[in-house]
Amino acid sequence: MCFRHYNESEVVMGKPMSDWLRFSVCYWHTFRGTGADPFGFPTLVRPWDDGTDSIENAERRMRVAFDFMSKLGVKYWTFHDRDIAPEGVTLSETNANLDRLAELASQLQGETGIKLLWNTCNLFAHPRYSNGAATNADAHVVAYAAAQVKKSLEIGKKLGAENFVFWGGREGYHTLLNTNVREELDNLANFFKMVVAYKKKIGFTGQFLIEPKPKEPSKHQYDYDAMTVIAFLKTYDLDKDFKLNIEPNHTTLAGHCHEHDVVMASAYNMLGSVDSNTGSPDLGWDTDQFPMDVKNATMIMQTVLEQGGLAPGGLNFDCKVRRESTDVIDMMIAHVGAMDCFAKALKIAAKIREDGVLGKMKKERYASFGSGLGLKIKTGTATLEECDSFIQENGEPAKLSGKQEMFEAVLNRYF
Amino acid sequence: MCFRHYNESEVVMGKPMSDWLRFSVCYWHTFRGTGADPFGFPTLVRPWDDGTDSIENAERRMRVAFDFMSKLGVKYWTFHDRDIAPEGVTLSETNANLDRLAELASQLQGETGIKLLWNTCNLFAHPRYSNGAATNADAHVVAYAAAQVKKSLEIGKKLGAENFVFWGGREGYHTLLNTNVREELDNLANFFKMVVAYKKKIGFTGQFLIEPKPKEPSKHQYDYDAMTVIAFLKTYDLDKDFKLNIEPNHTTLAGHCHEHDVVMASAYNMLGSVDSNTGSPDLGWDTDQFPMDVKNATMIMQTVLEQGGLAPGGLNFDCKVRRESTDVIDMMIAHVGAMDCFAKALKIAAKIREDGVLGKMKKERYASFGSGLGLKIKTGTATLEECDSFIQENGEPAKLSGKQEMFEAVLNRYF
Amino acid sequence: MCFRHYNESEVVMGKPMSDWLRFSVCYWHTFRGTGADPFGFPTLVRPWDDGTDSIENAERRMRVAFDFMSKLGVKYWTFHDRDIAPEGVTLSETNANLDRLAELASQLQGETGIKLLWNTCNLFAHPRYSNGAATNADAHVVAYAAAQVKKSLEIGKKLGAENFVFWGGREGYHTLLNTNVREELDNLANFFKMVVAYKKKIGFTGQFLIEPKPKEPSKHQYDYDAMTVIAFLKTYDLDKDFKLNIEPNHTTLAGHCHEHDVVMASAYNMLGSVDSNTGSPDLGWDTDQFPMDVKNATMIMQTVLEQGGLAPGGLNFDCKVRRESTDVIDMMIAHVGAMDCFAKALKIAAKIREDGVLGKMKKERYASFGSGLGLKIKTGTATLEECDSFIQENGEPAKLSGKQEMFEAVLNRYF
Amino acid sequence: MCFRHYNESEVVMGKPMSDWLRFSVCYWHTFRGTGADPFGFPTLVRPWDDGTDSIENAERRMRVAFDFMSKLGVKYWTFHDRDIAPEGVTLSETNANLDRLAELASQLQGETGIKLLWNTCNLFAHPRYSNGAATNADAHVVAYAAAQVKKSLEIGKKLGAENFVFWGGREGYHTLLNTNVREELDNLANFFKMVVAYKKKIGFTGQFLIEPKPKEPSKHQYDYDAMTVIAFLKTYDLDKDFKLNIEPNHTTLAGHCHEHDVVMASAYNMLGSVDSNTGSPDLGWDTDQFPMDVKNATMIMQTVLEQGGLAPGGLNFDCKVRRESTDVIDMMIAHVGAMDCFAKALKIAAKIREDGVLGKMKKERYASFGSGLGLKIKTGTATLEECDSFIQENGEPAKLSGKQEMFEAVLNRYF
Repeated sequence: MCFRHYNESEVVMGKPMSDWLRFSVCYWHTFRGTGADPFGFPTLVRPWDDGTDSIENAERRMRVAFDFMSKLGVKYWTFHDRDIAPEGVTLSETNANLDRLAELASQLQGETGIKLLWNTCNLFAHPRYSNGAATNADAHVVAYAAAQVKKSLEIGKKLGAENFVFWGGREGYHTLLNTNVREELDNLANFFKMVVAYKKKIGFTGQFLIEPKPKEPSKHQYDYDAMTVIAFLKTYDLDKDFKLNIEPNHTTLAGHCHEHDVVMASAYNMLGSVDSNTGSPDLGWDTDQFPMDVKNATMIMQTVLEQGGLAPGGLNFDCKVRRESTDVIDMMIAHVGAMDCFAKALKIAAKIREDGVLGKMKKERYASFGSGLGLKIKTGTATLEECDSFIQENGEPAKLSGKQEMFEAVLNRYF
Repeated sequence: MCFRHYNESEVVMGKPMSDWLRFSVCYWHTFRGTGADPFGFPTLVRPWDDGTDSIENAERRMRVAFDFMSKLGVKYWTFHDRDIAPEGVTLSETNANLDRLAELASQLQGETGIKLLWNTCNLFAHPRYSNGAATNADAHVVAYAAAQVKKSLEIGKKLGAENFVFWGGREGYHTLLNTNVREELDNLANFFKMVVAYKKKIGFTGQFLIEPKPKEPSKHQYDYDAMTVIAFLKTYDLDKDFKLNIEPNHTTLAGHCHEHDVVMASAYNMLGSVDSNTGSPDLGWDTDQFPMDVKNATMIMQTVLEQGGLAPGGLNFDCKVRRESTDVIDMMIAHVGAMDCFAKALKIAAKIREDGVLGKMKKERYASFGSGLGLKIKTGTATLEECDSFIQENGEPAKLSGKQEMFEAVLNRYF
Repeated sequence: MCFRHYNESEVVMGKPMSDWLRFSVCYWHTFRGTGADPFGFPTLVRPWDDGTDSIENAERRMRVAFDFMSKLGVKYWTFHDRDIAPEGVTLSETNANLDRLAELASQLQGETGIKLLWNTCNLFAHPRYSNGAATNADAHVVAYAAAQVKKSLEIGKKLGAENFVFWGGREGYHTLLNTNVREELDNLANFFKMVVAYKKKIGFTGQFLIEPKPKEPSKHQYDYDAMTVIAFLKTYDLDKDFKLNIEPNHTTLAGHCHEHDVVMASAYNMLGSVDSNTGSPDLGWDTDQFPMDVKNATMIMQTVLEQGGLAPGGLNFDCKVRRESTDVIDMMIAHVGAMDCFAKALKIAAKIREDGVLGKMKKERYASFGSGLGLKIKTGTATLEECDSFIQENGEPAKLSGKQEMFEAVLNRYF
Repeated sequence: MCFRHYNESEVVMGKPMSDWLRFSVCYWHTFRGTGADPFGFPTLVRPWDDGTDSIENAERRMRVAFDFMSKLGVKYWTFHDRDIAPEGVTLSETNANLDRLAELASQLQGETGIKLLWNTCNLFAHPRYSNGAATNADAHVVAYAAAQVKKSLEIGKKLGAENFVFWGGREGYHTLLNTNVREELDNLANFFKMVVAYKKKIGFTGQFLIEPKPKEPSKHQYDYDAMTVIAFLKTYDLDKDFKLNIEPNHTTLAGHCHEHDVVMASAYNMLGSVDSNTGSPDLGWDTDQFPMDVKNATMIMQTVLEQGGLAPGGLNFDCKVRRESTDVIDMMIAHVGAMDCFAKALKIAAKIREDGVLGKMKKERYASFGSGLGLKIKTGTATLEECDSFIQENGEPAKLSGKQEMFEAVLNRYF
């Protein structure tokens, strides 16, 4: 496997590819994934990993990770606190472990030039979080989550994280019978307010991102999709402090098309970053597959081009090799394949924009809002009475074809 | 068929059943439904309906409808503008037809005591709306929709509508290729602002309600679910002017459990009314079946009891007899069965509240927020530093079982 | 719009494109589709269609259809009995209408050289079939369906149909409460036996095809998917008399990936023909969209190449222009776009086969069945005891990576 | 928690409840479940389990299990080979472990009177099976699976298993790109033939059962649903040797209603046993919840009553307490709740049968097949020509309402 499309310095629409494609490797799947699934034991054996929770193992693994990322040629990485350092018996011990590995990470970042796209807290794997973290019915657990986030903000600052992500996999419910949704969501908002305050206090400058997911592991997750998170942020006056990290595999699980949440978040200036993976539309759970469909990737890149890039966000490969892909080299193959897929998609999306055919076809559909009553409607200055008069005078509108097949056929010319 | 549970004057939790169960019959399915489906022609032949678009037929049908509702013993009805009066060649003619039928409706309301729970506009069936109404790419169509709403607000005022509903079945997209979602949603907000202004101007006092649905007929409908609509309303400062009309069949199509949107809307004081129907969880489209599952209905009634009732909203039977249920009497059987289902559900929900066992079990889960750090978190006065200190001192939280099976087994005692 | 890939005489793998791509235009969507949907009235106005049920209109429409197909350059068409001729008051009258239009079809086939890929009976649209046709609870309805099929077999013979399709849209149930599934399926088998007998009697030589669909309009359709139909055919000893007509949009509604049923049917030598359309994976109903995804089409064409073609079956465009695609020219655009999509897919699939890289990678995975115990297992001559001995001697198998990402990345080279 | 409905000796329709409700406790979830899920570590800590893979721990666990089952009052248990005994370094060692625990099981069965409903092989959890067991692309793995089944048949015989189950969770594919479905299914059939031969050879008399599931962990599982398995069995002449073990949570994942596969399997005399659990219709994965919905359970029990019972099969609780249900007592609560749910369902189903109202309503729908042409159709002696003549003479059938709402409302009287 070698790159057939990705070339970091190739200029596309005025910027090098690496500026448009701010790829990051995720630590959890790629360096902590075991291949275990609900019906099977681990399958992925990595020669550098002795399977223990020792600091030495953690350090060795991290060196391998930076080596891998360097060879691959990505410029960013991402991690959960618990990915890089073992959890100790007490929070103090855990934090000390974290400090030690963060120190190594800092050093390796310096040596390789690889930067931290974002870090995040794992507030879902430990049994204490089984009923939620910030939305737990037990205040003691909420406090634990808060303490954990405090530390991770400090780590994020130390490592120059450009963003910080919150994914609330267990912030939701399994049965409404035992749940007071309003009380839990109020607590979630209060939690985020504490976090925002602390960020300011310590001068951490990364962008906060919430990552929506509709369900799994929860039956219902409060951060269902992009618009649901926006509702939450607006309700609690938090919308200035957060943007969204959109994962297409979560988007499709919420019943939308692959690119929907990317488009919606961007439309409201809330698209901060993308977890560039894919699922199988015939499966009802998160498969976190490497994105290998050029058409889907092109739809994402069109939005990225339209908003002028994702920075400080990026394209994080929240993807895992299949548990059946047991060769070590499969890790490399998968990333190279996905990077090439997005590089090709970028070139196609750029070609589509440069040609302008599809863009013009779309724009012309809305031409009637450029003047007259259309312009008044668009600018919010029309009234029902004016609309009524307009129809009394002008009668039925002409029929305008939506021309979906034409749009699809024209799009196909680019593939 | 006769009622085995519904008795309008029976007192439940201090109010007659009819106060809790503000049932309404919907005109569209029950009096305009034909049994046609995407693969089949009409099956439902009604002796009073001659199949023409004449005013005489419309009037005869309306008299039958009021007669049916009187016999059934419901106190409310609901309709779309185009259900009750034929569309004319021009808007003026259409409006004149509407006036004539509204006059008859007013008279029949007076004679029978049946009131108008809500009216609404059909902004989706006419070909002019195939690409949307308020979100159409053609301003001329938006104006038409506005003119139509203007008239319906006037009709709603005349008939004493207690609410007015907006269901945007074609406000969405079929393909993102031809759609500018932000421009369309901005227009939708402007549309609603015109509507709010006109409501105030004419002194219409009904509650405005938006009815979410995720998809169908659109591939994606902007009003996906309760939280999505709240996001929209908050974004455009419209949340004081609208509440939600929740339809469980739409909720399940959005990937939630039957009662989810009822619970969420109520939690944010946005539950205005309920379209009490059901779907089949194994089907991916809106079947609008009569609600016949007592457990599902109980879950709805628990929320209704909790918020002290639905008024000025109600329980609208947005349900259609199956197209195979071709006997005229099936109309009556279906409504009686559904009313009985909800009456039984009301009694069970009341019993659950009066017993207090489930409520107490739920409340006790959140006990830790009643004092100390929990109370500070709940009231928004805690900090990450305090949480961190708390954990440094108190260590790991105790394990608290979520006890889902216990909740489910206790619930089963009531059925 | 003009073809960019389709060229009927271009030779691909030893045969002209038109041999591999036996496209047919379907009469129902393309010439009888109105754009009506469950929430909207017809939108598609065709200048040649006066909207009446007259024979004259039917004849004019048929002439337009053959003209359209000639211009488009397809060599086959398909129809339901009721598509081409109006239903009369009696079956005799209906049959007479059908004879008249079949006469015209015969003439137009002769003039244009366009042939009949298959015809079929509409046993689902008329109200008499609302509770099923061959599986109706009323024997009178079953008899009606039988009489209708009898006539269509005769028409098929007259027009030289190369196949005859059965799609049982209402052969299923809406509720198990009122349904005896075994009795209905026994009747369905008896129905097919009558049909087979009559086919032989009249010397009709077309291939019988059953088209699976999981649901819609039925809640459950007995012909759920390819394997379900095979179970039925095997159970009733009908598997020699029928093959399958697979529609990918039905396949995905059954929870499978796009090409699954094509692959499974072909694996058991039961793939007779393909209704080449697509759905939206985020929608739970049949959208019958024109196939515009080259990757999906390539997966189909790989199987078609592998089994040496589809003849006497073909690729039937069971697709409808969106109801928003109201320009007459959209009919042409959609077909051209889809034909080009499949032509490109054919060329890609041929390239994949000629290269042999993916084929070899797949074949090598199964190499161990070529000799020794593997060969005995493959040929059914091994025993559990031999397997046990083999393991006692040889211990654990080596780990073999499934290499999904490698397969996907290699596949991407062809697009 | 105590039983409110279940009373093993209470006679229902001529048999004690325990004859109708042959409950079994499953060893895997109830005694080996840890509460781990794809996003979280184990949560369920059992005081008797020291977390090691020692024989001592396995023995202690088994004693607790039989104690639990005795206290609960169930008469059957079920297990996978790897549930009860630790896997050794070699197959011989593993088999020796298994023998040792089987010996203890035999003794405990004798002491408690609890019998083995069925045992099965775990052919999916070990990494060697990641690409399938009997359908693995590597013959060595197939041989391993065969050796494992051989041993389990012997264990089954020793413990008097009344059935033996095959669930092929990894017999399927993740991508068609690397899979030859026909070769794999041929191998699966050969595998089953070896198994049947060995069963006869050793004189094991338990009923073989295949358990369908559509997907998870595989993207596609070959044993998709009841009819798919029947297709497989018929294709390979295995249908006399196997029946089906239906799990409703698998049925709903395949897109059917809860009771569908139970009804279909029974209709073809293939219903052998039921894994009585439930899922959440809004979730796309197997949640294996305890069955707590009385209506769903009633639908199952109606079929069980209709076929005269499930013996030698039973109602196996393939259910796990939620990972949040961390109290040890939750295990007991969950089983008691589910047993009561089914006991109540049995009583309701019996009442429905004894009343006969619903049964009669259903039967009357098919009355026309009792004589005349209907009887000829039913008995397979009619012809298309006769049907045609019948319609020529008798014209249109009368309209018969399907009366779904009536059936539903009448059913509700029993709850």
